Amino acid sequence: MSAGSIGDAPVRPIAILGGTGPAGMGLALRWARAGESVIIGSRDAQRAQLAAVAIEQKAGTPVRVRGMENSAACGAADILMLTVPFEAQASLLKQLRPAMTAGSILIDATVPLAAGVGGRASRTLGVWQGSAAQQAAELVPEEVSVVAAFHNVSAELLFADAALDCDVIVCSDDPDASQLTRELAAKIPGVRAVDGGKLENARIVEQITALLIGMNIRHKGHAGIRITGLPPGAYR
Amino acid sequence: MSAGSIGDAPVRPIAILGGTGPAGMGLALRWARAGESVIIGSRDAQRAQLAAVAIEQKAGTPVRVRGMENSAACGAADILMLTVPFEAQASLLKQLRPAMTAGSILIDATVPLAAGVGGRASRTLGVWQGSAAQQAAELVPEEVSVVAAFHNVSAELLFADAALDCDVIVCSDDPDASQLTRELAAKIPGVRAVDGGKLENARIVEQITALLIGMNIRHKGHAGIRITGLPPGAYR
Repeated sequence: MSAGSIGDAPVRPIAILGGTGPAGMGLALRWARAGESVIIGSRDAQRAQLAAVAIEQKAGTPVRVRGMENSAACGAADILMLTVPFEAQASLLKQLRPAMTAGSILIDATVPLAAGVGGRASRTLGVWQGSAAQQAAELVPEEVSVVAAFHNVSAELLFADAALDCDVIVCSDDPDASQLTRELAAKIPGVRAVDGGKLENARIVEQITALLIGMNIRHKGHAGIRITGLPPGAYR
Repeated sequence: MSAGSIGDAPVRPIAILGGTGPAGMGLALRWARAGESVIIGSRDAQRAQLAAVAIEQKAGTPVRVRGMENSAACGAADILMLTVPFEAQASLLKQLRPAMTAGSILIDATVPLAAGVGGRASRTLGVWQGSAAQQAAELVPEEVSVVAAFHNVSAELLFADAALDCDVIVCSDDPDASQLTRELAAKIPGVRAVDGGKLENARIVEQITALLIGMNIRHKGHAGIRITGLPPGAYR
């Protein structure tokens, strides 16, 4: 059974909004390889279609990937993955809000890096709501659940063939949406998902990315994190 | 050669200030076992001496551990490890300031948990300077270097026999003090030290502790973190 399906229902597509950047391409590749149906969303439909072709070619096996304009992608799916720079997050969510269907899940990977306003990628901006994910929660319709996840996964390592060596911390106020997201994370080889608790904790997970970026700059690496010391049942 | 020594100089003792709590006892045990000379500091000299005896007994082999009143401990060492709750940090540092010798290193493990003011241990307080470590830097004499480290290590696992399974992220504006601290961290079996960059980054490392505490509450574990994806030279 696909994580994107419920019971015997057909596979639910995953729309990756703003999905032509490195993180979106990487997640699309991994999920497509895992048998998920993926829609790449972009401002420009043609650019989205080209990205879909690039993912098909990289995958090496038959996969289900399509490209669409962001609003169309949003309307065609109820699992929505947001992979845009922080400075583009609010305006894109305002634009997409009318296209979101009730009961959708928005998975937000946005990190408020200071680089977005000309500062350093190893520093973050303060977000009034506490985190980029909480800002997202304020901007989507009430019937849409927001989940924060995938902040700390190297985009470069995602858009590649080797298994990863990192965990994904998942924060949400909706336990079902959190679980679905943890199942999607665990479809990426080498990734374990860990429940990070409520959405408000996203503020910490987002910050970790800035710390890892600093390490990457100092050591020319692709830093990720593993959570140790929890019982096996804590990892999915 | 001991990490607490420079060249052929005699071993430099490590004073663990406010060291009778779980984290201080755990670090004292591990460093004593590694051959370091450890001074436990406490408000109450007798309590410190009792803690030293408890560590000797737990160690199982001959170790060098003494107990002293905090100011005396501070004056007898130039490697100072601070393991107190956030709400005790500022007042202790103000008290100890006259006892600190120029050229000392203060390693701060303070986490500004909201629990300190009646809130949750899975949430943090905002600290005006950016982090508890930066607050510490403001309170010590200028000739004392502040290093932030050991926030994310389980106190319970430290005061035990098994090797740990976690990394220690070390932040400081003084590269030599950072390196000495990384060497001390690496003396704990199973621990690798990772350079976390400048002291200002301590704000992120401190927050991680609150996230791990939340995981411990949910899963009854002793969560720690490992940094993956860096070249071998990045770990010490």
